[in-house]
Amino acid sequence: MDPEKVKEYFFNDRYARFSKIEIVDVKEGYCKVRMEIEDIHLNALDILHGGAIFTLADFAFAVASNSRGRAAVSINASITYFKPPTGKIVYAETEEINLGNRLATYQIKVYDDKNTNIALFTGTVFRTSKETSFEGG
Amino acid sequence: MDPEKVKEYFFNDRYARFSKIEIVDVKEGYCKVRMEIEDIHLNALDILHGGAIFTLADFAFAVASNSRGRAAVSINASITYFKPPTGKIVYAETEEINLGNRLATYQIKVYDDKNTNIALFTGTVFRTSKETSFEGG
Amino acid sequence: MDPEKVKEYFFNDRYARFSKIEIVDVKEGYCKVRMEIEDIHLNALDILHGGAIFTLADFAFAVASNSRGRAAVSINASITYFKPPTGKIVYAETEEINLGNRLATYQIKVYDDKNTNIALFTGTVFRTSKETSFEGG
Amino acid sequence: MDPEKVKEYFFNDRYARFSKIEIVDVKEGYCKVRMEIEDIHLNALDILHGGAIFTLADFAFAVASNSRGRAAVSINASITYFKPPTGKIVYAETEEINLGNRLATYQIKVYDDKNTNIALFTGTVFRTSKETSFEGG
Repeated sequence: MDPEKVKEYFFNDRYARFSKIEIVDVKEGYCKVRMEIEDIHLNALDILHGGAIFTLADFAFAVASNSRGRAAVSINASITYFKPPTGKIVYAETEEINLGNRLATYQIKVYDDKNTNIALFTGTVFRTSKETSFEGG
Repeated sequence: MDPEKVKEYFFNDRYARFSKIEIVDVKEGYCKVRMEIEDIHLNALDILHGGAIFTLADFAFAVASNSRGRAAVSINASITYFKPPTGKIVYAETEEINLGNRLATYQIKVYDDKNTNIALFTGTVFRTSKETSFEGG
Repeated sequence: MDPEKVKEYFFNDRYARFSKIEIVDVKEGYCKVRMEIEDIHLNALDILHGGAIFTLADFAFAVASNSRGRAAVSINASITYFKPPTGKIVYAETEEINLGNRLATYQIKVYDDKNTNIALFTGTVFRTSKETSFEGG
Repeated sequence: MDPEKVKEYFFNDRYARFSKIEIVDVKEGYCKVRMEIEDIHLNALDILHGGAIFTLADFAFAVASNSRGRAAVSINASITYFKPPTGKIVYAETEEINLGNRLATYQIKVYDDKNTNIALFTGTVFRTSKETSFEGG
């Protein structure tokens, strides 16, 4: 897997781009992303929108699960919110909990640059038989 | 509860506005929202982003749960995806499953203008003691 | 599908039997089960155990999802609790939310004989290619 | 907190006892439990029942969340299944993800004596103002 090819491919993710989410790091089965909090990310209470937190985690989930050589489609996800961020940058970082032939599960921690524990996301994908083309060379 | 006051208040939800989500209808404990699918909502596969689907449902959830007279804070949510939309407009519509003193649970169906069953969202809020000011008069 | 064959097959579900859960009704993609609350179902607070509520809903989920002609394996499930039962009998009843080729999602309402809304369960199965043998004849 | 008082209190959890679940270890905000797989725990496919896996994890969750000095009531939980056990004993072990004033979230890993990764459970409790009486002395 060539990280540059993954980044190039996911640059085409417009909702993530539009939400100003950037890939910080990607390896097989792993991804870390970041988002600087701007006005567009806020809800009516002036705090970071749950949808923006979810989208951040979901993007890390998509990149990590698709980095395993086969196209992966999200089946479902759950998110629990802890505290609103106190810092200016929010990160989401994946952990591969299970990688089966057909199914894989990832957990994503969302935290900020002050190390506030913001949310925990758990998601499961269906791994299709379609190969991705992220190999280097 | 005055629907116009609710709409005015939630107009300040910038991530929803930025995601081009509009309130179609709001009553006590109920909300329906819509989003016309545009390029900015797509993922790297050119289909509607899971984060955009979640944000749509989450916004309906926030409006419905806050329309009950007290400020409501999201505790957690889960979403299951069924099919990508085939139409051009996506709707999210809430059902109030349980309204307790401290906790309330809503279920949100996401479907499109061709009646495709896109996703099911279930979310729980903590109802704070802070009153909202959506009364008419 | 022959309901008697389904019941006979699931009579072999020992944890359900041991938990005194009975099938009330089964059709294609649908199941209703019941459990009379006994001392063995209680937790340390003398109220119905969350595990017993889950097991009741999970059994209805298993029967409904396996009644569709192919063996179905549970991927994941989530449950939200509302109120403890005030009656003596608890029911779980399924609704088929989505039936895809590989995946299917069911929602199960748990309520008692006084119509108390006890819990809501949402579960997704992977539908294997193995046929079940519930046909009549 | 006196672990012996916690064990004594939870000995009164009849559904856990009946399901032959035992507390292995308990500390503030932490619990590990075990269950030897017996015939009563099996489903119609002769594998460990999802309800038994959930009940095991849920019991560890209840003990850990109630060990923090205040009575804790389960709001909701989600579980993702990975592999059926290949060993004879199943364990569930908690991790306290977040401890807030009103809400707390725990994650529970379920694995067997062959270290098979069986399931992941995430649950959130509401922390009531009622004090528990697990203090030693």
